[in-house]
Amino acid sequence: MSEILSRLAETLESRKNADPASSYVAKLYAKGLDAILKKIGEEATETVIAAKDGDKAQVLYEMADLWFHCMVLLAQQGLHPDDVLAELARREGLSGLVEKANRRDNV
Amino acid sequence: MSEILSRLAETLESRKNADPASSYVAKLYAKGLDAILKKIGEEATETVIAAKDGDKAQVLYEMADLWFHCMVLLAQQGLHPDDVLAELARREGLSGLVEKANRRDNV
Amino acid sequence: MSEILSRLAETLESRKNADPASSYVAKLYAKGLDAILKKIGEEATETVIAAKDGDKAQVLYEMADLWFHCMVLLAQQGLHPDDVLAELARREGLSGLVEKANRRDNV
Amino acid sequence: MSEILSRLAETLESRKNADPASSYVAKLYAKGLDAILKKIGEEATETVIAAKDGDKAQVLYEMADLWFHCMVLLAQQGLHPDDVLAELARREGLSGLVEKANRRDNV
Repeated sequence: MSEILSRLAETLESRKNADPASSYVAKLYAKGLDAILKKIGEEATETVIAAKDGDKAQVLYEMADLWFHCMVLLAQQGLHPDDVLAELARREGLSGLVEKANRRDNV
Repeated sequence: MSEILSRLAETLESRKNADPASSYVAKLYAKGLDAILKKIGEEATETVIAAKDGDKAQVLYEMADLWFHCMVLLAQQGLHPDDVLAELARREGLSGLVEKANRRDNV
Repeated sequence: MSEILSRLAETLESRKNADPASSYVAKLYAKGLDAILKKIGEEATETVIAAKDGDKAQVLYEMADLWFHCMVLLAQQGLHPDDVLAELARREGLSGLVEKANRRDNV
Repeated sequence: MSEILSRLAETLESRKNADPASSYVAKLYAKGLDAILKKIGEEATETVIAAKDGDKAQVLYEMADLWFHCMVLLAQQGLHPDDVLAELARREGLSGLVEKANRRDNV
């Protein structure tokens, strides 16, 4: 499952130079930062609603929407999901994993 | 970087039976679903504010907070971040990766 | 300026039995509670974005959107903006005003 | 009920020069814009949660919190709740009420 965020980040990066008419994400980049941030607010609210409904499939669906738009924000800002994962690892005392991952990347 | 979400999910799972006084997450579980959902709403707003400030380090920090509390919600619901990643892969036509990952898990 | 919330509440009440195709609000009632709540989440985020832009006209515009959808929620729940105002008055030690207002209503 | 928003606006205005230690609102002003915006995001989420619980008293309580922090934002920006009401009236074709209200104010 591990490569999915990285592969998605590559896809999002590649859409940056695409015609806004060519895809949902290309259109979102063209609309700009505020449009991306509104989606993050919307999807967070929809995640809350799904959880209050006790609908687990819907929680997964809305959370995928939320993470997806977070990744669009990262791409728009020139950031990478690995930066978020590294911050999570740092907090959880999992920094050894980050170091190992970076070593592997450098080989 | 790949194992971080899975390792964090394990940690969050292990805190489920912990004394509420023993950690931030154990206390959050004890408060229940609404407390977790309020944090998701809060951290989404803080991500928006950080992005409007153009402060990339703060965007990463707040997004790590947002993803962390999403993972607490997943654990509380008996779900796993791989379920979210599989949904993202399905949408992006990356299902081959999910299948490959599952095969590897089964070996 | 005082009657505006009450007059708007009357309008929203009257739309409850309207054909969903007849107005924005009638369609929103037909979609149900979750659609109204999503709008509250959206408009709160848009208020935050407008304030971060330092655009006062836009803050007013988005806050009007936010209060409007709050009032749709109140109507959908059989509640009235006066109930929210009474709660605000109670907290602020302005309860004398509420009592006076009710007396007037009863005349 | 009519004067409550105006009276609350006066109270919020008067707290602007107060010692941050003297009240909740004075402390919130001292923390600055982002702290106020975070509260708007939080209270919007809590309103959603209360509505999903079908708890009408809690909806009123959280919506009062939401409107209160909206009014703190208005005060911080040098705006007035009448500006929001005028925008609502304009949209709803209630502009006659605004004109009448202004006339009365000017007498």
